[in-house]
Amino acid sequence: MQELDVVGIGNAIVDVLSHADDAFLETHGLVKGAMTLIDEDRARSLYGVMGQGVEISGGSAANTIAGVAALGGKAAFIGKVRDDQLGEVFAHDLRAIGVSFVTPPALEGPATGRCLILVTPDAQRTMNTYLGAGTGLTPQDVNPEVIEAAKVTYLEGYLWDPENAKEAFRRALDIAQAKGRKVALTLSDSFCVERHRDEFRELAAQVDILFANEAEILSLYQVDEFDAALQIVHETGTLAALTRSEKGSIVVDGGEVHVIDAELGLPVVDTTGAGDLYAAGFLAGYTQGRSLHDCGRMGSIAAAEVISHMGPRPQADLKEMVKERLG
Amino acid sequence: MQELDVVGIGNAIVDVLSHADDAFLETHGLVKGAMTLIDEDRARSLYGVMGQGVEISGGSAANTIAGVAALGGKAAFIGKVRDDQLGEVFAHDLRAIGVSFVTPPALEGPATGRCLILVTPDAQRTMNTYLGAGTGLTPQDVNPEVIEAAKVTYLEGYLWDPENAKEAFRRALDIAQAKGRKVALTLSDSFCVERHRDEFRELAAQVDILFANEAEILSLYQVDEFDAALQIVHETGTLAALTRSEKGSIVVDGGEVHVIDAELGLPVVDTTGAGDLYAAGFLAGYTQGRSLHDCGRMGSIAAAEVISHMGPRPQADLKEMVKERLG
Repeated sequence: MQELDVVGIGNAIVDVLSHADDAFLETHGLVKGAMTLIDEDRARSLYGVMGQGVEISGGSAANTIAGVAALGGKAAFIGKVRDDQLGEVFAHDLRAIGVSFVTPPALEGPATGRCLILVTPDAQRTMNTYLGAGTGLTPQDVNPEVIEAAKVTYLEGYLWDPENAKEAFRRALDIAQAKGRKVALTLSDSFCVERHRDEFRELAAQVDILFANEAEILSLYQVDEFDAALQIVHETGTLAALTRSEKGSIVVDGGEVHVIDAELGLPVVDTTGAGDLYAAGFLAGYTQGRSLHDCGRMGSIAAAEVISHMGPRPQADLKEMVKERLG
Repeated sequence: MQELDVVGIGNAIVDVLSHADDAFLETHGLVKGAMTLIDEDRARSLYGVMGQGVEISGGSAANTIAGVAALGGKAAFIGKVRDDQLGEVFAHDLRAIGVSFVTPPALEGPATGRCLILVTPDAQRTMNTYLGAGTGLTPQDVNPEVIEAAKVTYLEGYLWDPENAKEAFRRALDIAQAKGRKVALTLSDSFCVERHRDEFRELAAQVDILFANEAEILSLYQVDEFDAALQIVHETGTLAALTRSEKGSIVVDGGEVHVIDAELGLPVVDTTGAGDLYAAGFLAGYTQGRSLHDCGRMGSIAAAEVISHMGPRPQADLKEMVKERLG
């Protein structure tokens, strides 16, 4: 198998995006800015009251992988869809940008997973995920040759929710580290951190690269102030990129600490995918052998692009944007 | 049944929008700006080479109906989907904006129709339509009580392609006119006009309101100059709204001729749905009893909104836009 830059493992999800106001969130008991897991019944009833939507392929790690490919990286994705229309859309949208999507679709069981996303006028997104076929991801779907071929295996914290997927996650981690490859983890969501805090603390120290936003890292270490979390991360020694929305990001690696500004000049329309694309930019830079400063800048640039429009995947020419802004 | 402003009958289609350059159109033998009917094999192979996409409910008459609803009109839609995921999306997106979608989905046969749309950098759209379940629309799907309840029955020329749908069209026309209701027709596409020129000439004189763009009306009467077509339309006596892209539109009705400017001040991103939304604005004004000048202006405003973003359905508050610009 040819060398890969990044393989992502995550929930295969098609996003259904719709505009909504704060009153809608309140009426339907939705926690603004969070990702909530929902079952099929709830997915059906919530979709029933949502406004008209747009369907766009999503999934946290899949978005990151799409970003890595857009930045010129060789990338693959492992995740489970059904053999249905939304599954076909999901697979198409990865393959159309040159990503190797290697997991066969399930031929029975729940439909392809979807995430009902309400975008409020402040550009915040509130996500309601029906994992569907994604829960069928098992350790058997983790192809050793793909993991071994990739410089970095990228795992989303959301995988820790379904039991099978968690085992798949563990298997990927073991294969990659046995081969001397790097493993990256995103904590995904502060509620996800709450659900799995103890295990995530262990994982955070075990992986090579950690991505987290401010809410997630505060929750992980149960502290109130960003700097307190930063000191703990620093002690673990893990290379970490901690994002803080408009305050930019902090990249820490042993002795090195970089303070990276958020990228300016683009409008903020829909924050869906901001963290995913930050990770994409960072990992693209990392696998290109760039400095940590430049990895952080690439993360900021990719994140700024994705929040300038609806949907969680890049639309502009990210490679060109990085070239213009960073050289 | 309660009074309706407009019922639309058309092909039920989910659009798959993707960016492409002119070279892509040439390589794949696509006629820029046109709507081409494709079969399932071609739909599959073209989708295979298209870039990543966005799925949005479309369909010409359905877009118009969505626009009428967005402008406060009571609206219904008749058209055929399958009981599949894209069919569910199509139905949801109409019902979510208050449109009564009355046609039951097909339980067997081809999948829900889709239109593969390539948007070039000049904002032009090139459409490739797989009608799918839409071809299963029959006269039995035309509910007499719905047609009789509507001030205007709006028919798309595209219905003239599948034989069953054509019969459904005829039936709707007969029911509406027997009840003294108005019937509106859009010629849909200049290639569609070429396929059915003789019948469309008869229909154009038979309906109460005719919508056509410049290419369509030139093709219908096989003339080279807009003014020549206008004179013929004038002679037929049919109320007609003839759209000319950035040159605005001409509304003609017996002795009255109105020259309406295009609406300025919005960017042009994707022209998909421009004609559909012009018709929506016009019909909303018409059923509100507005002057023909104001009907034309409402058409221009609704068209300007829909071409300022990707996708064929309004996203901004059209009612508010009309209020601001027209009072």
